Amino acid sequence: MIHPTAKIGQNVTIKEGTVIGGNVTIEDNVYIDYGCIIRDNVHVKKDSFIGARSVLGEYLIDFYRDKNNNKCKYSLVIGEQSLIRTENIIYGNTVIGDEFQTGHKVTIRENTNIGNNVKIGTLSIIQHECNIGHYVNIHSNVFMGEKSEINDYVWIFPHVVLTNDLTPPSNELMGVYIDSFALIGAKSVILPGITIGKDALVGAGSVVTKDVSEEAVVVGNPAKKIRSIREMKHHLTGKPIYPWRDHFKRGMPWADSDYETWFSNLGLKEGE
Amino acid sequence: MIHPTAKIGQNVTIKEGTVIGGNVTIEDNVYIDYGCIIRDNVHVKKDSFIGARSVLGEYLIDFYRDKNNNKCKYSLVIGEQSLIRTENIIYGNTVIGDEFQTGHKVTIRENTNIGNNVKIGTLSIIQHECNIGHYVNIHSNVFMGEKSEINDYVWIFPHVVLTNDLTPPSNELMGVYIDSFALIGAKSVILPGITIGKDALVGAGSVVTKDVSEEAVVVGNPAKKIRSIREMKHHLTGKPIYPWRDHFKRGMPWADSDYETWFSNLGLKEGE
Amino acid sequence: MIHPTAKIGQNVTIKEGTVIGGNVTIEDNVYIDYGCIIRDNVHVKKDSFIGARSVLGEYLIDFYRDKNNNKCKYSLVIGEQSLIRTENIIYGNTVIGDEFQTGHKVTIRENTNIGNNVKIGTLSIIQHECNIGHYVNIHSNVFMGEKSEINDYVWIFPHVVLTNDLTPPSNELMGVYIDSFALIGAKSVILPGITIGKDALVGAGSVVTKDVSEEAVVVGNPAKKIRSIREMKHHLTGKPIYPWRDHFKRGMPWADSDYETWFSNLGLKEGE
Repeated sequence: MIHPTAKIGQNVTIKEGTVIGGNVTIEDNVYIDYGCIIRDNVHVKKDSFIGARSVLGEYLIDFYRDKNNNKCKYSLVIGEQSLIRTENIIYGNTVIGDEFQTGHKVTIRENTNIGNNVKIGTLSIIQHECNIGHYVNIHSNVFMGEKSEINDYVWIFPHVVLTNDLTPPSNELMGVYIDSFALIGAKSVILPGITIGKDALVGAGSVVTKDVSEEAVVVGNPAKKIRSIREMKHHLTGKPIYPWRDHFKRGMPWADSDYETWFSNLGLKEGE
Repeated sequence: MIHPTAKIGQNVTIKEGTVIGGNVTIEDNVYIDYGCIIRDNVHVKKDSFIGARSVLGEYLIDFYRDKNNNKCKYSLVIGEQSLIRTENIIYGNTVIGDEFQTGHKVTIRENTNIGNNVKIGTLSIIQHECNIGHYVNIHSNVFMGEKSEINDYVWIFPHVVLTNDLTPPSNELMGVYIDSFALIGAKSVILPGITIGKDALVGAGSVVTKDVSEEAVVVGNPAKKIRSIREMKHHLTGKPIYPWRDHFKRGMPWADSDYETWFSNLGLKEGE
Repeated sequence: MIHPTAKIGQNVTIKEGTVIGGNVTIEDNVYIDYGCIIRDNVHVKKDSFIGARSVLGEYLIDFYRDKNNNKCKYSLVIGEQSLIRTENIIYGNTVIGDEFQTGHKVTIRENTNIGNNVKIGTLSIIQHECNIGHYVNIHSNVFMGEKSEINDYVWIFPHVVLTNDLTPPSNELMGVYIDSFALIGAKSVILPGITIGKDALVGAGSVVTKDVSEEAVVVGNPAKKIRSIREMKHHLTGKPIYPWRDHFKRGMPWADSDYETWFSNLGLKEGE
C-alpha cells in the first residue's frame, strides 16, 4: 500500500508487505525490504537500503491521543547511501546525514540530529533531543539519554549508558557531552551533565561521576584518572597508541592517507 | 485473519496483516496497528492501542511440544487505555492493569501481575512470576528476573538488572524486593533476595550485595551507604530533593495538587 | 512466496507471510510461524520451530553493495529439534547444532559455530567468528564480541559483555576464552583476550581485567579473587555448592543420573 501523495524515484525496489504513508519521498535507487512501515512525512535520500520491517517516521505521543498523523510538521530525513538493517524504529522530526549505517533493532527518537558517516549498532537506543556529530561510532546496545551531545569521531562501545537526570525523577535533564575523538569503554555509565574531554579514554565498566579532562584515561567505580593516553603503549610493540587518529583509519575520512595529511589538506589553520 | 470465536467491540481499528486467535476479546475503541499476532485467550480492554507487530498471548513452552494452544487456561489481560508500542511480546497468563504504557520491543513473560499506570521502556524484559505494583516506572533495557516484587511508585532506570539465583545454576530462585518510592539508578545490579527499603536511592552503576535500609543512599561496587536521602540537596537551589514525592508530580495520582493533599484526601489514617 | 529451488520436507507447517529463498532446505516436521524471512542457502533440520518474523540467513555486508545474494557460498545450518522464538536474526555462514533454543530478538552473526544443546536468551547478540561449545547457557541481553571462544557447560548470565579490542579502535581483536563449567555473573564485563578458567565463578557486576584461574571466585571492579569455589557453602544447608555439576542436572546430559555416573559411563580415561 503506497499513499497516492508519496513520491517514488527511479529504480526503487519495494518488497512485499511494505506500507508507505502520505507526504513521503523515496529518492532513486532506494531498496526497501519486506514489511517496512514508512509512516507520513519521511524523506529517504538516494541509494539507501531500508532493512526488513523497519518503521520510519514512527508516531510521536500526540498521535496516540487523536489517531491523526496528518499534521505534516514532523518529518524524518535519512541521508544518501544509508544502510539501515532490519527492524529499526526511527521517529519523525529527526534529521540524519549521509552514509548512515545501523545494525538491527535500533531505536532513534524524535528531535534528534545525526551527522554524516555515523554508525549505530544493534539494539542501541538514541533518545530524543540528542545531537550526534560526524563519524561517530556507537556500538551495540548503547543507551543514549535525551539531550546527549556527541562531537565528531567519538567511539562508544557496547552497553554504555549516558544518563541525564541528576536528581531523579525530575524535569531538569542535563545531557552528557562527549568531545571529539573520545572513547567510552564497554559497559560504562556516565552521570548526568558530565563532560568527557577530547581524546579521553573511559575504561570498560567505569562509573563516571566527574568531568574527564582532555587526554585522560579513567577507570573504576567511581572512575579515577590513572594516566594520560600519551603514556599508553601497545602491548606487543611498545609504541604509543593514542591519539588513535594517528594509527587507525578504517572508515575515516583519512582512510586513503593519514590523519596529518588529510587534516593539513583541509586548509585549516593550525590549532583549529 | 480473525478467528470466528473472537469478540470484537465497537469502533475497533485493525490494520492489515493482523492475526487474531480464538477466545480473544477486543473491547471498544481499541486500535491494533499493522501485523500484530494476537494468539488465543487474550483480552484487550477498551481504548487501548496495540503497536505494530506486537505479539499478545505469546506461546508458553508447552505449545512447542504439541503445537496445541487450545487449552484455554492461559489468558492475557491488558487494561483500559493502555498504549503498547511496536513489537512488544507479552505472554499468556499475565494480568496487566489500566493505563499501561510501554516503549518498543518489550518482553513480558507469563504468570506476572502488573498494576495500574505502569510504564515499561524499550527493550525491557520482565521475566515470569513477577509482581509489579501501581505507578511503577521501569525505564529502557531493564532486566527483571523472575520472582521480583516491586511495590508502588518505584523507579527503575535504564540497564538495571534484578537477579534471582544466589548459587547459580540452581532451582532455588529468590527474587529482589523493592519497596515503594525507591529509586534504582541506571546500570545497577541487585543481587538475589535483596530488599531495597522504602524511599531508598541506589546510585548509578552500583552492585547491591546487601539489603538497603529505608531512605538510604547507596553507591559503589559493592554498594555502601553514603548518606540518607534527607541530606541530599539540589545542586542549584540547595533545597532538599527527597523524598521525591514532595517535589515531583508528573504522571502521578497527585499530579493536580501535591502528595500531601492527595494523600490526606485518601482518608487513610496517619502512618499508613 | 517459496522459491522454486527450495526443498520442503514432509509435514512442514508454514504460516502466512513467510518468504523462503533459493537453495533452502526445510526438513520434515518443521513449523515456521508467521512472517519469517528465510533468505537463500539456509538448511533447517527436522523437528525444529522457527518463531514468527525470524530472519534466517540474513544478508552479509556484500549483499548491500550489489543486491545479489545468489553466490551460494554462505549457508546457515540449524540443527534438529531446535526452538527459535520470535524475531531472531541469524546470519548466513553459521552452523548451529541440535536442540538449539533461543528467546526473542536474538542476533547471531556470520562465521560462528555453535554446538548442541545451547540456549541463548532474549536480546542477546553473538557477533561473528565466535565458537560456542555444547550445553552452553547464555542468558538475556548478553553481548558476545567477535572471536569469543566458549567451552562446554558454561553459563553466562544477563547483561554480560565480552569485549575484544585491547586498544580501541584497532584491527587486532582478541576474543575472550571461557573454559568449561565456568559461570559469569550478571552484568559483568570481561576485557579483551582474558581467559576465565574451568569452574571459575565471576560475581555479578564484576569488571574482569586479568585472567581468572581455575575454580577461582572473583568479584569487584577490578575483579579480585576472594576465594575458591570449593569454599562456598549453601546459605541454608551449609553444604558445598560447587562444582555445580555435582548438584545441578536440569537440561544437562546427566539429567537422568548424576555427573559422576554419566561421566564414568562415557568410557573416558581419568583426567580427560
